[in-house]
Amino acid sequence: MTKSQLIDQIKKKKSFLCIGLDVDLTKIPKHLLKEEDPIFAFNKAIIDTTHHLCVAYKPNTAFYEAYGLKGWKSLEKTINYLNENHPEIFTIADAKRGDIGNTSSMYAKAFFEDLAFDSVTVAPYMGKDSVEPFLDFKNKHTILLALTSNQGAFDFQTKTIEGKELYKHVLETSKSWKNAENLMYVVGATKAEYLAEIRRIIPESFLLVPGVGAQGGNLHDVCKYGMSSNIGLLINSSRGIIYASDGLDFAEAAAKKAEELQKEMALELAC
Amino acid sequence: MTKSQLIDQIKKKKSFLCIGLDVDLTKIPKHLLKEEDPIFAFNKAIIDTTHHLCVAYKPNTAFYEAYGLKGWKSLEKTINYLNENHPEIFTIADAKRGDIGNTSSMYAKAFFEDLAFDSVTVAPYMGKDSVEPFLDFKNKHTILLALTSNQGAFDFQTKTIEGKELYKHVLETSKSWKNAENLMYVVGATKAEYLAEIRRIIPESFLLVPGVGAQGGNLHDVCKYGMSSNIGLLINSSRGIIYASDGLDFAEAAAKKAEELQKEMALELAC
Repeated sequence: MTKSQLIDQIKKKKSFLCIGLDVDLTKIPKHLLKEEDPIFAFNKAIIDTTHHLCVAYKPNTAFYEAYGLKGWKSLEKTINYLNENHPEIFTIADAKRGDIGNTSSMYAKAFFEDLAFDSVTVAPYMGKDSVEPFLDFKNKHTILLALTSNQGAFDFQTKTIEGKELYKHVLETSKSWKNAENLMYVVGATKAEYLAEIRRIIPESFLLVPGVGAQGGNLHDVCKYGMSSNIGLLINSSRGIIYASDGLDFAEAAAKKAEELQKEMALELAC
Repeated sequence: MTKSQLIDQIKKKKSFLCIGLDVDLTKIPKHLLKEEDPIFAFNKAIIDTTHHLCVAYKPNTAFYEAYGLKGWKSLEKTINYLNENHPEIFTIADAKRGDIGNTSSMYAKAFFEDLAFDSVTVAPYMGKDSVEPFLDFKNKHTILLALTSNQGAFDFQTKTIEGKELYKHVLETSKSWKNAENLMYVVGATKAEYLAEIRRIIPESFLLVPGVGAQGGNLHDVCKYGMSSNIGLLINSSRGIIYASDGLDFAEAAAKKAEELQKEMALELAC
């Protein structure tokens, strides 16, 4: 998917919502555990009731790998279901990968070709040659961790190097990498006040913003400081939507939560 | 496996060699492609001829994920084969994972429980709460990226924060984390001169050292600057060993290369 197709979808749906498909078998409704593939059954139900309210889905690979081969199969079925039934949806493999060049190429192949995701999250610690292999893929997007939404973000990301925080070095340095136009960035919503400064460095890039809801971030503040002239935001919610209910009505309850966020987003877009 | 069991194995085998099982179907001998599971067939043959020469194997997960479900199955078969036939071998999932707390717990479960590896490599960018969930597991080891062997290491890892390079902050900060005794560190051999300074910060921790061979690192220098009173080194070689030949003799050729390194290591241990 191209960036302009994503922007078109956002305008059409009046939503820049991304739903995190972080499926934990201990949290999903009990009745699904009888299914042959409970993870996929859960995802399919959530997708069926929410796809018109969001523009992106983001399975976090950890939740699939934890169930071994079966989990990987559920991930494959989920992305195939999305690509076959909702090609207008932007798909994100939240994998936080990154390795030396030839190895990053294998990860890129895994997520962009084998699983056919539109994008993948990547960690910046190993630098340019660990990220550029992902950027090689046309109409695929590499979402680089800049400032994450967890407490540990303050351990290294906000430390100052030559008068500037590490995450700002990551943003600036990455702009010079080959095919940098294929970069997007993870910026946690729990630090909305940082967004204004971030926009000074990357005025137009798309930001994937976790941490609204369960982690305490505020949607309006994120839009106020983070929206670009072309929107440039994907706001993720995982637990707040997918675990809205653990009863038979879980998919409808998820849709209700997604709709609440979508309506807030429509208001922000109308401003 | 405990650290003292690993040290015993090193002393017994006179080797601190780790063999990287980074299997690329375009590089393995052509005759293996007829096998039902060429990746596992390749790994099994390499393990059968080299297990007495090394103390650890390190499959890099990227090379398995690139082949989707089939690749994940090959990884599972490889680790099961090792655990069943060579329980004395230290196993490393070179996965470079790391995410917010509850998600890192899922990754830890994936590699320590589902796949039953002894250790996993983890990226430090997201800080304390992204690493501690891995450290919770008894007799399991978390190998934190400190200074990697690629060119991109100089993009951020060697940048100075308050008078000290980022990778040194990673080393020092991590020492204060809960169950820090379960930490080991990745330190690239291409920067052997850095090892003396690293040993001042972490005198006894095990270091996993990639970059000897294909990437240009020198074994003697690594030992000179990096060996601790309890050895404290695992030196990895991947391509230099496993792709020594692409003919019918590939496993024997790999063993020959592994033996050359093991003999050099025996000399270093005798000093």
